[in-house]
Amino acid sequence: MKEVERLRALRKSAASHEIEALLVTHLPDVRYLCGFTGSNAALAVTASKAVLFTDGRYTTQAKAEVKGAKVVIAKGSALKEACAWLESSAAAAGFDPANTSVSQLEMMRAAISGKARRKFFQPLTQPLAADLRMVKDDDELRAMTAAAKLGNRVFEAVLAHLKPGVPETEIAAGLEFFARSMGAEAMSFETIVASGTRSALPHGRASSQKLPRKGFITLDFGVILRGYCSDMTRTVHLGKATAEERHAYESVLAAQEAAVAAVRPGVTCGEVDEAARSILRKAGLAKFFTHSTGHGVGLEIHENPRVAAGQPQVLEPGMVITVEPGVYMPGKFGIRIEDMVAVTSRGHKVLTPVDKKLIEL
Amino acid sequence: MKEVERLRALRKSAASHEIEALLVTHLPDVRYLCGFTGSNAALAVTASKAVLFTDGRYTTQAKAEVKGAKVVIAKGSALKEACAWLESSAAAAGFDPANTSVSQLEMMRAAISGKARRKFFQPLTQPLAADLRMVKDDDELRAMTAAAKLGNRVFEAVLAHLKPGVPETEIAAGLEFFARSMGAEAMSFETIVASGTRSALPHGRASSQKLPRKGFITLDFGVILRGYCSDMTRTVHLGKATAEERHAYESVLAAQEAAVAAVRPGVTCGEVDEAARSILRKAGLAKFFTHSTGHGVGLEIHENPRVAAGQPQVLEPGMVITVEPGVYMPGKFGIRIEDMVAVTSRGHKVLTPVDKKLIEL
Repeated sequence: MKEVERLRALRKSAASHEIEALLVTHLPDVRYLCGFTGSNAALAVTASKAVLFTDGRYTTQAKAEVKGAKVVIAKGSALKEACAWLESSAAAAGFDPANTSVSQLEMMRAAISGKARRKFFQPLTQPLAADLRMVKDDDELRAMTAAAKLGNRVFEAVLAHLKPGVPETEIAAGLEFFARSMGAEAMSFETIVASGTRSALPHGRASSQKLPRKGFITLDFGVILRGYCSDMTRTVHLGKATAEERHAYESVLAAQEAAVAAVRPGVTCGEVDEAARSILRKAGLAKFFTHSTGHGVGLEIHENPRVAAGQPQVLEPGMVITVEPGVYMPGKFGIRIEDMVAVTSRGHKVLTPVDKKLIEL
Repeated sequence: MKEVERLRALRKSAASHEIEALLVTHLPDVRYLCGFTGSNAALAVTASKAVLFTDGRYTTQAKAEVKGAKVVIAKGSALKEACAWLESSAAAAGFDPANTSVSQLEMMRAAISGKARRKFFQPLTQPLAADLRMVKDDDELRAMTAAAKLGNRVFEAVLAHLKPGVPETEIAAGLEFFARSMGAEAMSFETIVASGTRSALPHGRASSQKLPRKGFITLDFGVILRGYCSDMTRTVHLGKATAEERHAYESVLAAQEAAVAAVRPGVTCGEVDEAARSILRKAGLAKFFTHSTGHGVGLEIHENPRVAAGQPQVLEPGMVITVEPGVYMPGKFGIRIEDMVAVTSRGHKVLTPVDKKLIEL
């Protein structure tokens, strides 16, 4: 039972930080640790016990899903009942300050009746659950590989529909229909279809704009399979690309491939970022590369590690990151190319096998 | 320029709470107040100035979207630059504790160089922006009416596809394709298609389960138009309903209609909830109604006010809420019926005009 192993790993990590108990409320963490997928949950963990608190909407679902933890259906606030249980079971409890709002912390403190109220909840200095989640097990890697493959099939299916005059929203509609029909549980984020000058918007959601007769189209989308997200970007060209467009495309592709090639255990995320950035610098395009090179992906579309300039996180086997440099020339065009890459024991494996040569439609 | 009016209303509200300046980071609030739709934003507001801080990905987009505020593209963290600007412009600033994480607050404090670091940021005791957003203006009501109508059309289009043996995910795929094709920017939440015994899960996302020969199917979904969410639920029956099923359906419908009838200015949200709950109590079904009656809806799928037992919030013209009682009999079936209802000056207007009589397919 993988959930039991994960809870054991969490407890070991907590013990090494001298943390007696934990309150886990970030939903992807809860799902990872005990299997529960509901929208209201507080998981209380001590060295010997784990209890998942939720509400009456999830009575049936929690029974079916939760592994390795007892389920309590709270009459009032699930969060408050979890806090009260923790107070009766431990002298202090860690919480995740990045995923706990200032108001939630006040509620948590108010649920502690003893004098230790102000001190009972201690912010974790390391995101213990997020750290565990960075390294995927074989089951997770299988789910993510399947999600990435499904994404590829969706991309290939949508290519035939990229024609001048079709609105971006219609492309997004078709893309999402293909994804759903092929078994996706959901899209992992709002599908980006940005064509013509809109491709210069790094996050151009599909709009009512019609695809141009000539120009780039950036498609950035992901699917969810068994809870795990895929993420891929391809930029294709309608009509024949100009010399300037082709130069930019080839530069982004070279940067992307250099960063992918840099992925292996022991390398830092900052080094992966620099591998892409240095190529664009040489091409005179670095100032148009206005974001970081990538991010971890898993149960969440954005998770640790961050793949950005100077990031000291060292890559380990089992981590899965995106590698997605881009250039954006305001008023002209933009290009981004993105793969999902898993770190293996000896190097890396690209989970997104679709070819990246410039496609002119 | 509606954004300028909204910023003026926010300043007035802040002044009445003796708040000199505000840091707004919750993205729907930022969009509401200045029009910016990017994913990284910190809006700093004083009595005379407003500045939107974001990053280089959004240079072009921010220029095109932002109204009533100056745009600054931060070189480093947009949040930190906003805090530094606030320190140079005011003696203290309010922030929204419900949408600020404990870590964010630490970062905000670290960006304040003066001695007042610990005290500079004051948690708002009232969610000023959320309070403004509760009452929709005419433009917002038009967008929400259009979104609700689009939702209706999607529901009517999907009905023909509800047949025994079709997987729930395929129904969800078709539903979302219709929505996109009819112009939806996105779905407002993960589409719920729960059939047979799964209809007893209040939040049963579409699964690979096939629609049964006989039994209920609950469809709960929403679309986004011009940023505004719709939300509707219908429960239909494949085959002829049993007497028990029909009794439960008629009871939920009576409860839903009673709650809708209760909506008017001056009534509390708790009274609307009780209108539904008392009908189900009389029918002996109250213990199967395991959630609250509804919620506000707008730029977010769940926003203020909460429509739950005992909620003292008084309804005002312009508020838009969902009314969605349900009953869930574990292992048997579930039923939920949901409309979007706008509070008008004299009563209410149901934005979801699809008929609610039991449909047997």
